[in-house]
Amino acid sequence: MATSYALMIQPVDGDADRADFADTFASVDPAAPALSVGELSTQRGDGIFESIGVVDGHPQEVDAHLDRLAHSARICDLPAPNLAQWRAAIAAVAAHAPAGESVIKLILSRGIEHGPTPTAWVTLAPAADFTAVRERGIRVVTLDRGYDSTVPARAPWLLLGAKTLSYAVNMAALREAHRRGADDAIFVTTDGFVLEAPTASLVLRRGDRFTTPAPTGGILHGTTQLSMFAYLQECGYETGYEQILTESLASVDAAWLVSSVRLAAPITAIDGTSLPTDAAFTADLNAYLLSPRD
Amino acid sequence: MATSYALMIQPVDGDADRADFADTFASVDPAAPALSVGELSTQRGDGIFESIGVVDGHPQEVDAHLDRLAHSARICDLPAPNLAQWRAAIAAVAAHAPAGESVIKLILSRGIEHGPTPTAWVTLAPAADFTAVRERGIRVVTLDRGYDSTVPARAPWLLLGAKTLSYAVNMAALREAHRRGADDAIFVTTDGFVLEAPTASLVLRRGDRFTTPAPTGGILHGTTQLSMFAYLQECGYETGYEQILTESLASVDAAWLVSSVRLAAPITAIDGTSLPTDAAFTADLNAYLLSPRD
Repeated sequence: MATSYALMIQPVDGDADRADFADTFASVDPAAPALSVGELSTQRGDGIFESIGVVDGHPQEVDAHLDRLAHSARICDLPAPNLAQWRAAIAAVAAHAPAGESVIKLILSRGIEHGPTPTAWVTLAPAADFTAVRERGIRVVTLDRGYDSTVPARAPWLLLGAKTLSYAVNMAALREAHRRGADDAIFVTTDGFVLEAPTASLVLRRGDRFTTPAPTGGILHGTTQLSMFAYLQECGYETGYEQILTESLASVDAAWLVSSVRLAAPITAIDGTSLPTDAAFTADLNAYLLSPRD
Repeated sequence: MATSYALMIQPVDGDADRADFADTFASVDPAAPALSVGELSTQRGDGIFESIGVVDGHPQEVDAHLDRLAHSARICDLPAPNLAQWRAAIAAVAAHAPAGESVIKLILSRGIEHGPTPTAWVTLAPAADFTAVRERGIRVVTLDRGYDSTVPARAPWLLLGAKTLSYAVNMAALREAHRRGADDAIFVTTDGFVLEAPTASLVLRRGDRFTTPAPTGGILHGTTQLSMFAYLQECGYETGYEQILTESLASVDAAWLVSSVRLAAPITAIDGTSLPTDAAFTADLNAYLLSPRD
């Protein structure tokens, strides 16, 4: 969906304490040129981002997204974002959201090449209608991510735990999934462990226990997965972070890809093997994920 | 250096046969906004690029760069670029180059999100002065690229042979090299083979034989390395593409990182172990690389 509102941000120091940031924001026409060709985001995917779900004007899980933005900035040697400034920008943009579901994107770029500061902006766009996908579910395939489970810890320059703008591989993995007749992909390591989807986290169910791959540096800590675990704990279920073997996927009782905008999409098949689904349970879960949460 | 000239391109079909493309070009102020926030290059590093050296207004190795642009487009499922159009754009931009060394960048982005076509542009900027680096040389460190040598062929969705805009890891590797007191890095596989530098190719010398890692899908085929091999063959030397063991690096007679703008930078040390250099040989080589070549 086309961007409906965009706010450029003049980043202030991470620890600057200000009552108001309005003078650091400038709204721009989202269809008009707003970025110069010297932007390092565009030349090298050199920056970080977050996508925040918005329901009826309420931006969801803002704290978790801001925590992850700060985490990504550390991994990428970017100046620490001023989280109060970003929180104010999110509120300013969310004020323009219509009823229904939208998506707010935060982008922090290393800036103009040879320029003095990062550039930053926040956009608002209508969300695609995922109602049917949340009910009907998705077929996924596993795709080799090319590295083994020991790599993220020993090679931090691969930025595997950061949500960078260098998402060409994530997009290529989705195209490969579509080529194989599936809707989405699950990345796996060369030594047989499950990672994450290109734009979502994976949650598995066995009986009353729900697990997700541990965010040990190789994957992002999913903001929606965090919300889902909070919900499951409220419901009395057990949750846990684990190293999950790829070969164990076929025998789970249910599985979901969860993300900020599509929310919980039940997986109906992995690599052509059908998985059980529970329509009522998933509907309750998505109703929770659509309720206002901070 | 700041961009001095920028030309937006309206891409035409790859096989369109036209005498003139001038009506598909529009020069823009390189310091002013030219790209919208919906650009997928900026949101996801979703596109490809080339950097072409320009000497006294002459763009170097244009054919090799255009071949690689087309190769990257195929890997990334982008529409085939019309090479005659890109060649015309390069000429139009090169006409604005001053005497001395410049760099022309070609960028082909997947376009505006949900938009109908790719977006494309070409920029011109002064090159940094690499005279001293070409003489004094560079210290490099080897950095684990996280995958083994079998991965590129079996996981094409990792886009390892494409020159994509998703260069955050390449930039992070350079920062890691600087942290270790070096000037540049050489990526190596987990099973002990040499790949390439984050923004350059590696050429090794043993006696009268020069080798570079084979571009087997995991690395780019270096345009400047191709020129260097042509020069070496003219001089009567032997050249070859090989699988090169990381452990063999310490015993070479000389080594260079070669790239389109810095040209041949002699390596003075790898991981702290000094390498021999040959100042006269490197000077002759760089004189050749600075001469007009098509």
